[in-house]
Amino acid sequence: MNGIRFTLLIGGVVAVATFALADLADHVDPMVGTRNMGHTYPGATVPFGMVQLSPDTRRLDMYDADGAYVREAYRYCSGYQYDDDTIHGFSHTHFSGTGHSDLGDISLMPVSGPVQLESGEDNVSHFRHETEIAEPGYYRVELDDPGVLAEMTATTRVGLHRYTWDQNTEAHLVLDLTANIYDYEGKNVWTFVRVENDTLVTGYRQTTGWARTRTVYFAMAFDRPITSYDHKRLDQTPYTGFYRRFDQDNNFPEMAGREIRAHFDFDMKADEPLQVKVALSGVSTAGALRNLQAETPGWDFDHTRAEARTLWNRELKRVQVETLTDEDRDVFYTALYHTMLGPVVYEDVDGRYRGLDQNVHTSDGFTNHTIFSLWDTYRALHPLFTLLQPDRNRDMIHSMLAHFDQSVHPMLPIWSHYANENWCMIGYHSVSVIADALAKGLDGVDVRRALDACVTTSRVPYFDGVGEYMDLGYVPDEVSGSSVSITLELSYDAWCVAQLAALAGDDDLHERYMDRSRGFTHVFDGAIGFMRPRSRDGAWRPEFDTMATHGQGFIEGNAWTYSLFVPHDVEALTGLLGGPTELGDYLDALFEMELSDEHIAHTEDITRDGIIGNYVHGNEPGHHIAYLYNWSDRPWRTQSRVRAIMDAMYGRGVDGLCGNDDAGQMSAWYIFSALGFYPVCPGSTRYELGSPLVKHATLELADGATLVMRTENQSAENVYVQRVEIDGRPIDRRYIEHAELIDGGELVFYMGPDPANAH
Amino acid sequence: MNGIRFTLLIGGVVAVATFALADLADHVDPMVGTRNMGHTYPGATVPFGMVQLSPDTRRLDMYDADGAYVREAYRYCSGYQYDDDTIHGFSHTHFSGTGHSDLGDISLMPVSGPVQLESGEDNVSHFRHETEIAEPGYYRVELDDPGVLAEMTATTRVGLHRYTWDQNTEAHLVLDLTANIYDYEGKNVWTFVRVENDTLVTGYRQTTGWARTRTVYFAMAFDRPITSYDHKRLDQTPYTGFYRRFDQDNNFPEMAGREIRAHFDFDMKADEPLQVKVALSGVSTAGALRNLQAETPGWDFDHTRAEARTLWNRELKRVQVETLTDEDRDVFYTALYHTMLGPVVYEDVDGRYRGLDQNVHTSDGFTNHTIFSLWDTYRALHPLFTLLQPDRNRDMIHSMLAHFDQSVHPMLPIWSHYANENWCMIGYHSVSVIADALAKGLDGVDVRRALDACVTTSRVPYFDGVGEYMDLGYVPDEVSGSSVSITLELSYDAWCVAQLAALAGDDDLHERYMDRSRGFTHVFDGAIGFMRPRSRDGAWRPEFDTMATHGQGFIEGNAWTYSLFVPHDVEALTGLLGGPTELGDYLDALFEMELSDEHIAHTEDITRDGIIGNYVHGNEPGHHIAYLYNWSDRPWRTQSRVRAIMDAMYGRGVDGLCGNDDAGQMSAWYIFSALGFYPVCPGSTRYELGSPLVKHATLELADGATLVMRTENQSAENVYVQRVEIDGRPIDRRYIEHAELIDGGELVFYMGPDPANAH
Repeated sequence: MNGIRFTLLIGGVVAVATFALADLADHVDPMVGTRNMGHTYPGATVPFGMVQLSPDTRRLDMYDADGAYVREAYRYCSGYQYDDDTIHGFSHTHFSGTGHSDLGDISLMPVSGPVQLESGEDNVSHFRHETEIAEPGYYRVELDDPGVLAEMTATTRVGLHRYTWDQNTEAHLVLDLTANIYDYEGKNVWTFVRVENDTLVTGYRQTTGWARTRTVYFAMAFDRPITSYDHKRLDQTPYTGFYRRFDQDNNFPEMAGREIRAHFDFDMKADEPLQVKVALSGVSTAGALRNLQAETPGWDFDHTRAEARTLWNRELKRVQVETLTDEDRDVFYTALYHTMLGPVVYEDVDGRYRGLDQNVHTSDGFTNHTIFSLWDTYRALHPLFTLLQPDRNRDMIHSMLAHFDQSVHPMLPIWSHYANENWCMIGYHSVSVIADALAKGLDGVDVRRALDACVTTSRVPYFDGVGEYMDLGYVPDEVSGSSVSITLELSYDAWCVAQLAALAGDDDLHERYMDRSRGFTHVFDGAIGFMRPRSRDGAWRPEFDTMATHGQGFIEGNAWTYSLFVPHDVEALTGLLGGPTELGDYLDALFEMELSDEHIAHTEDITRDGIIGNYVHGNEPGHHIAYLYNWSDRPWRTQSRVRAIMDAMYGRGVDGLCGNDDAGQMSAWYIFSALGFYPVCPGSTRYELGSPLVKHATLELADGATLVMRTENQSAENVYVQRVEIDGRPIDRRYIEHAELIDGGELVFYMGPDPANAH
Repeated sequence: MNGIRFTLLIGGVVAVATFALADLADHVDPMVGTRNMGHTYPGATVPFGMVQLSPDTRRLDMYDADGAYVREAYRYCSGYQYDDDTIHGFSHTHFSGTGHSDLGDISLMPVSGPVQLESGEDNVSHFRHETEIAEPGYYRVELDDPGVLAEMTATTRVGLHRYTWDQNTEAHLVLDLTANIYDYEGKNVWTFVRVENDTLVTGYRQTTGWARTRTVYFAMAFDRPITSYDHKRLDQTPYTGFYRRFDQDNNFPEMAGREIRAHFDFDMKADEPLQVKVALSGVSTAGALRNLQAETPGWDFDHTRAEARTLWNRELKRVQVETLTDEDRDVFYTALYHTMLGPVVYEDVDGRYRGLDQNVHTSDGFTNHTIFSLWDTYRALHPLFTLLQPDRNRDMIHSMLAHFDQSVHPMLPIWSHYANENWCMIGYHSVSVIADALAKGLDGVDVRRALDACVTTSRVPYFDGVGEYMDLGYVPDEVSGSSVSITLELSYDAWCVAQLAALAGDDDLHERYMDRSRGFTHVFDGAIGFMRPRSRDGAWRPEFDTMATHGQGFIEGNAWTYSLFVPHDVEALTGLLGGPTELGDYLDALFEMELSDEHIAHTEDITRDGIIGNYVHGNEPGHHIAYLYNWSDRPWRTQSRVRAIMDAMYGRGVDGLCGNDDAGQMSAWYIFSALGFYPVCPGSTRYELGSPLVKHATLELADGATLVMRTENQSAENVYVQRVEIDGRPIDRRYIEHAELIDGGELVFYMGPDPANAH
């Protein structure tokens, strides 16, 4: 893999040579997870980039004509489903792997001949997958109707398009500001477009929905003049003022309304490309224009493409692995790629960004980020950043603290979403991210300020059961349909706050939050051996199905799964279950029982592919479970289980993910597990030892330190760890400490075909 | 009137003494024009203030259920109609005297007992006019249901409310963000409210309509804590995301949606006032909060009220008059007051403002203003500013140039409207305002920059006939229903550009625009002696009614009126009409003929009260007409006519205006005329001499100069000017030059009961 790579730029004026020690981007396939439940997108982006320029293959309204939820719409979280054969447009914002959606902003589509703007269906084109290429930072596809080669690449804030019509034609670019992923009547709030001159268009789109008050500003430049343009305002607003004096449909440079669709016409010859640059901003069109000028001053698509690849390689090489198979290598680097699609940068080149209060702020000493799907990502993605991306992790924590400062409650983010809080999922797991980073020694964050934000967040009484939890020690069944899940997660979150209190030297606060972290004990029904919903008066819910996910006091997991969610006190959990043997029996039962079809049908985001017994890998509440064997009488089962999960749940190809990638959490689980250790309890400094999948790994850590993980006797069969050494010292425990890794050194796993008692 | 005024502050802690040489505010009655067509508002504001805090007496939708325009809604341009006996709320933005509407932003209403939010009708209260007091900077009224004394005052950017319930009660303040003047489904685009703490609420409202993309941000502070609050989102958006997890109707501090109505509850005792401060901003809620803190740091309603009055007196005393009657004095100062209600300041205390491009700009060396109803106000209001308010006039011209810089066309403002262009009415009369100010010596404006903006504006071919005018020298009948009016106004505007070219020393450009200024000759049909619509091929329109206002090629005036609109070349017009005698006959006929009821019914904005013969004072195209006698063989008729118009069309009381005050133009006409001279052709340095109404006037001009206008033998009967002297020099012409006034001195009119030949 090492060597010098020459990229000959087809269509470019000069050939640019890029020197890359390892073109690890070769092993990334952005198509992975694009079929069914992965909810990934194949388009072009750079690491943590604000622009995700990707094709949208179908557009479904969220509700049908009768107002009923269209379940199929859920499949389009990323805008792309592999089984489709049409493209509706190339838009600039996409979530990766989420289980809910929004975005799809500023959609462009090249068309030919007479152009229609009445319907979003008018400008759809067929395509064939064999014409697609998806690489880190580059996407291309050939459209069939008309014949157009569509290519795209990106910088952090700019999407570059290159469209090449296959014949001389009346060429148009349709700008569809009505296009939304998860659309419905009323989702578009306002759109605004100005044709500044014959090569520059600016504007914005404001939407509501999952992000209640969101605006995306853009500046769009063309490499050749617009010859004419036109637009339609598709909303039926009764009054449009004295604009009616103008011929607004014919080269009128001001467009505004709730639903605007425009086309720009170009005099194109066959095989002459039209290049388009679209910069985004959360601040203003002036901000977007500055971003455009700063990041893409010229017109060199191929150079930008090469730059994007270089950026990817720079990040990917933070972990250099040797694997047992080529497939393992590709799965590993694709997973690593998927961990760097979010949180994304959310500020202009001058540091200005729109805050949660909708005011414009300037980041001072950090880069503002958004898209924090924290219920998913606190588990492994942020701990991975703690290990591999300390600078970005610091930026993200400062972004969270800024969010807190701008919050009216005030609260740290639950799900930070483009200057909005969408309140998705339960708990307040920002505290986990902060505790994990600070416990593991991240500098540049004021501990006291962070603690204050965490404590304040933990005390907002009207937030989703928190008031009742503070009063009763648990969330009563009457208060929430997810009362047990919330109780368990609030217990863990309290423990995270306690860790920060300890770091800040506030022993009293530490003790109080340690007390508060024991809420899980209130919802464990010893009589049945499960966590169970409990009413305000203390009574257990009489009818209770431990296998069902819905309506039993849990969310995205059933009682079997969620009863194991005490990451911060597995010893206590083990005690509640009866001891290490009972824990082992419980875990074995979980992995070996069979879920009924009905239960699977009601499990969110999951198909049978994402399940082993009653272990549901596609949803996050189980992500630590395989590692819990380490507390049981049969710790080696962690090793076999995690290898089995890696084997079954991750693969190459469009079906390579068994469930939503969940903003990188699923992939982060894989990265840790493939390296042989996993942060069962973020906020602690421990990683549980598992069974590495890769043969050898070199990790670039902070301050130039290098950690080598290597294996002896690694093979597909030798899943059992015989012994572990760090820098030649044997490890006689089932975990390693962050401090043992962070300064670099060598971690060696000795593998074998059978369990070893020591581990 | 001179003396020292003590204001004892009832309810305030200390008594504040304000020293005022002349409490001219005593002679201002903001109620004037509040019945029928005046379209003025009685509420509280300071000179050119960004906040106009005033009661709204009725709210009518612009369209009925069938989509038909509700003509009655037109009466509510200012939110207030005197004949109503209900108040729906006190809102913070109002146009003064316009003939179209918008605004009514951020409406507050004090209520008692159980509060309803479902309908805007729920919180209406009756009131009686005898409880009303309207003074410059202060308004009070007693509401009957419930019994609440409502008082309001203002600073430039903050409205202060003081509500005193007459009994101990469950008191609420309703914040109705759904309330619009000229409302219709879809007018509200978005609303956003945050309860920052128990004494501070921030938010914004975004609307479309006459201003297509307009947002008003606010910060609202209370002098006692909110005890509880609630809101309703009245739009039926199908999806509201995970906010549904919250009890949003119960003290939930984040509100957003298209249609939000909220109430805030206070524990009030009888006769204990609740004070509220509401600051506005066009930039952000942070900007509004800064405005609040800067302009009203404490809680002293009475002090602010006194300050507002002081500000008014400071402006009013720029013209100190002695009048024949008390009524004349009151009419004069009320008119002078009405000339200072717009254009209004439109920037935050830090100089930041939202521009036409929707980006935030910072004013550099000027104060940004908006509300330029230029088709109305170029005639006399801006010339009045040229004379009396040179600093503000400079600010306004810089605001226009900034508008130009931010315009995509680019064009100077036609009708600048809160970071929007609403394109109301014809021509591009910014050029007149700029030419008038610069021709009269205003410094601080770069002539070349101004000229470039004017020339560029004059060449936007798709703007309302301009392209055709450039091609043909007139606007053809096919192109516009107002083709003749537009031709005449474009002729005048071209002349204004020519004056600027001369000022800039560009003789070639001057000549070209002088040529262009002669378009009026193309639409004068010598065969009938009137301006007349003409088709592209040059043919006159066959059927033509010189008395009708609609459908004859004119707007807000018929052929009789508009045929006289050649202000820049009355000599040529006189020639077209046959000579000074024919001009005199024409004018006599105009003033003496009788309009049919049908013709009056079709005259916009006007009742018979606003008409003398066929002279329609309530619409602007006739405003110069009485002064045209100066070019005729009977110049003294100017003197009798203008005195008759002042007498008939202006008065005390709610009916004191005969038509829309038109953003101050009607009142500015009065001020000039009452002083004895009038700018028939803004952009020239001449004022036509009329007949002063006042006995004596002292004008504070720029640089400390004082102009005294005095009369000899002034009386109601002695309307004819016998002779005029400046600084003792007799004036043997019918006009005076700006240069003769601007350095101060004495202008003396010798009056008599009969015409004098010399004049």
